[in-house]
Amino acid sequence: MTEIRMKVATITLSDLAAKGQREDKSGALLRQLLSQDGAELMPHLILPDEKEVLIQKLTALSTEADAVITTGGTGIAPRDVTPEATMAVVEKRVPGIEEALHLSGRDKVPTAILSRAVAGIRGSCLIVNLPGSPGGVQDGMAILAPILHHAVRLLRAEVKDCQAEFGKP
Amino acid sequence: MTEIRMKVATITLSDLAAKGQREDKSGALLRQLLSQDGAELMPHLILPDEKEVLIQKLTALSTEADAVITTGGTGIAPRDVTPEATMAVVEKRVPGIEEALHLSGRDKVPTAILSRAVAGIRGSCLIVNLPGSPGGVQDGMAILAPILHHAVRLLRAEVKDCQAEFGKP
Amino acid sequence: MTEIRMKVATITLSDLAAKGQREDKSGALLRQLLSQDGAELMPHLILPDEKEVLIQKLTALSTEADAVITTGGTGIAPRDVTPEATMAVVEKRVPGIEEALHLSGRDKVPTAILSRAVAGIRGSCLIVNLPGSPGGVQDGMAILAPILHHAVRLLRAEVKDCQAEFGKP
Repeated sequence: MTEIRMKVATITLSDLAAKGQREDKSGALLRQLLSQDGAELMPHLILPDEKEVLIQKLTALSTEADAVITTGGTGIAPRDVTPEATMAVVEKRVPGIEEALHLSGRDKVPTAILSRAVAGIRGSCLIVNLPGSPGGVQDGMAILAPILHHAVRLLRAEVKDCQAEFGKP
Repeated sequence: MTEIRMKVATITLSDLAAKGQREDKSGALLRQLLSQDGAELMPHLILPDEKEVLIQKLTALSTEADAVITTGGTGIAPRDVTPEATMAVVEKRVPGIEEALHLSGRDKVPTAILSRAVAGIRGSCLIVNLPGSPGGVQDGMAILAPILHHAVRLLRAEVKDCQAEFGKP
Repeated sequence: MTEIRMKVATITLSDLAAKGQREDKSGALLRQLLSQDGAELMPHLILPDEKEVLIQKLTALSTEADAVITTGGTGIAPRDVTPEATMAVVEKRVPGIEEALHLSGRDKVPTAILSRAVAGIRGSCLIVNLPGSPGGVQDGMAILAPILHHAVRLLRAEVKDCQAEFGKP
C-alpha cells in the first residue's frame, strides 16, 4: 500500500471553549494524534454548539479536506447538536465506525454509550464525530488511526481491487 | 455527583400477557431491578402488541416520567411493533444504547441480535426498549443501570460541564 | 425446535466478477457454508455493482426465498451500492445483525468496520449483505449460521410463543 498524505480538518464544538472559558484539551490532543499519524492539518476551529454554524463549516471543509474530525457536542444534553449537523451534511453513513466509537471505552466509562457520534461521507470527504473529552478522543483515534489512510484512498478511488489489496471489506 | 430520584414508567408488551394467558415475568423482574436502583416506579402497564396503543402511552408518559422502559415486542415476528412505535415517538435516537443492547447476551443466546430494541429521547424523557424475556431484561439492565442517573441528569440539564464531572462523553 | 428446510438465494456483487475478470471466491464460499447449514440453494447470481439491477433482483427473490444473502459492494468506494439497494427494498431493518457484522473481524482486519452491510426484512424474507471477500463471508456466516433457522421460522410465523421456546428475544 502506498502511503498518502491526508489533508485533515479538525473542529472543537464547545460553548465554553468558544467563549474562551475552557481550555480546548480534546482539540489539542486530537491534532497531536493526527500529526503523529502523518496527517497534514488544516487550521483548527473552535465553534459554539450551534447546528447551522457547524453545517456551514462541514459543507465548506468537505470540498477541501480528505477528512474532517470533530470533538464535542455528541452527548444527550439539550445543547449537543453535532450529530444532527453531521447527519444533515453527509450523503452516506458509515455505521461500523459509529458503532465502534459508541461502544469504545465502555469498560472504563459506562456512560460512553451516550455518545451519539456520527460518521459519514460527503463527496470524497470522510466526516467523523468524536466525544468532547481527551479520553473520548484517545479511544476514538485508536479506532480511526488504523483505517484513515485506507478510507481516504478508497474515497479518492485510488484502490482498484479492494479484495486483492486488503482482503476485506 | 448528587444522586437524584428518577421517576420511571414500565410497560410490558405481550398479546398473551395482556389477555392474562402468560405470567408477566419480565415486567416483574424489570421493576425489581429498577427498584433496587432507587427508581420511583409509576404503575406498571401490560399492553397488547398494538403500535397505536403504545404510541399513545409513550407520548403521554414522556411528559411525566424521567424514563420509560419497555419489555417485549422487539423481535422480528409479524406482531413485534415496539421498535416502530418507539421510533415514531422519540425525537432523537441514542444509538450507543441500542447497539449495546442488541449485542448483549450473544455469548449465551446467539439469536439475541434479532432484538430491534430502540432507545431515544422525547422532550426530557429517555425511552428504552428491552427484550421480552427475563434474560433479556437482566442483560439490558446491566447496561442501563450504570447510565440511567447520569442520563436523567443530562436530560434535566442539571449537568453544567459534562467533561469536568464525568470525563466522557 | 423443529428443523426446517430454508430456501436461500445468493448474489455476488462485483463489476469484475460479473465481467468474468475475477473468480467469484466469496460467492463460492458463501454457498458452501449455506449448504453445510442445510439450506436449499437457489441458482447463484453474479451482478455488476448497479443499484437498480440489485433492487429488481432482491424484490423478485424476496417472494420466493426465505433468505437472500449477498456478498460484495458494501464498502465506501464510489461503486459500492449494495447497502443503498438493500435499504430501498427492506421494510424493516434488523440492526443487531448489521452491528454484529460490522464489528466482526476487527481484530484481524481493522478496516472491517468500513463495511456498511445492511440486514432487513421484506415480506417474510430476510435479506443480509456480507462483505465481498472470503474472510468477510467466513466471519459473517459465523454470525448468521446460528440464527438463520430461528429467524426464518419467526418470519413464517411458525413460532407461537417465542419466550417459551428460546428465552430471548
